[in-house]
Amino acid sequence: MKGVTKLKYTKIPEATIRRLSRYSRCLEEMNGLGEKVVSSAQLANKCLVNAAQVRKDLAYFGEFGIRGVGYYVNDLLQDIKRILGLNKEWRMAVIGIGNLGSALLSYKDFLKQNYKIVAAFDIDPPKVIGRVSEKVGKPVEVLHINRLKEVAKERRIEIGLITTPPSEAQNVANQLVEAEVKGILNFAPAQVTVPDGYMVKDVFFTTILDNLAYLLSNN
Amino acid sequence: MKGVTKLKYTKIPEATIRRLSRYSRCLEEMNGLGEKVVSSAQLANKCLVNAAQVRKDLAYFGEFGIRGVGYYVNDLLQDIKRILGLNKEWRMAVIGIGNLGSALLSYKDFLKQNYKIVAAFDIDPPKVIGRVSEKVGKPVEVLHINRLKEVAKERRIEIGLITTPPSEAQNVANQLVEAEVKGILNFAPAQVTVPDGYMVKDVFFTTILDNLAYLLSNN
Repeated sequence: MKGVTKLKYTKIPEATIRRLSRYSRCLEEMNGLGEKVVSSAQLANKCLVNAAQVRKDLAYFGEFGIRGVGYYVNDLLQDIKRILGLNKEWRMAVIGIGNLGSALLSYKDFLKQNYKIVAAFDIDPPKVIGRVSEKVGKPVEVLHINRLKEVAKERRIEIGLITTPPSEAQNVANQLVEAEVKGILNFAPAQVTVPDGYMVKDVFFTTILDNLAYLLSNN
Repeated sequence: MKGVTKLKYTKIPEATIRRLSRYSRCLEEMNGLGEKVVSSAQLANKCLVNAAQVRKDLAYFGEFGIRGVGYYVNDLLQDIKRILGLNKEWRMAVIGIGNLGSALLSYKDFLKQNYKIVAAFDIDPPKVIGRVSEKVGKPVEVLHINRLKEVAKERRIEIGLITTPPSEAQNVANQLVEAEVKGILNFAPAQVTVPDGYMVKDVFFTTILDNLAYLLSNN
């Protein structure tokens, strides 16, 4: 790997970052199959994008390919993981252990990546104690939300997944900020705000459905 | 409402459509509180975007505001719903009734919008019969996947939510296409392809986490 410059990072479009994530998924699969080298056309084909897009996305981060050969699968995979910050384990907590929170505790795709759920919180923990996270391979005890700050420090939690009712989302986000959990993935359909230095990404199923409904209505 | 022209639709950025969905959510809330008029600044503030963005997004679809007054809350809400194709009910099926599929069957945010789950399918229905969708107010019987085509026609299903393991996603997508279900929301972390005239939107939690991890690593 050469020339992965920090400077350029600020200008990277979010769509590029999303595609990098997709490329890493495809490369992971190729790597698992023992494939050593891939051309941008092959990678593009596998990831359902076009080859020019692959080259353009990777060009943001420096020179990766070997002219006339393509990319070394494992090298490119490791480079992309480094760019995305996935060359480390991310320690996460789920807050709100209803149906969706429980589903996330056993979400198999986290298992394959470097995302580890290390704690679960609820306002009413007894009703949910004993739910199992396959991610950690043993039951995650659901703790009372009032232990968030203490446990976040203890278990070095970096990302909080909010799966509470929407009315509680901002309150939980405040508690995560208080506990210095820098990243939030917000599944509760309510906008939450955090101070500078903290990050929220929303996962609103209904917003994505609205997008689909729009496309279906206009095609 | 004036000047909502069909012609313009093709050029609308996806980010605009996502924000329209957000505006409709905010307007719905304002409407519920009995608010009659809103300025672009107030709407922007409520939706956590900037006022120029609100005006620009709405300008794609014609003239909505009254100069010096702002927007009539309910009129704008109805116009946005019409633009997004939400002035009708969307009938959906969930395919794959594991943890996530079950969570979606009782996902309260669908309930508030025009998304109705009218069927649930699995390859192993007996284990899951009797799960309840609060959306429809009564238990949704989980049917065997081999009844998809027949039931899709009968119940006029327009959107399929894929919540199977990734290895089954393309197969299920094919069956949805076979059943002429035009829209797919794919939660299974695997790329699926569909013919022209069909639409897939992915909801890959890990991809969104990758995006968050990138931002946390580079800030």
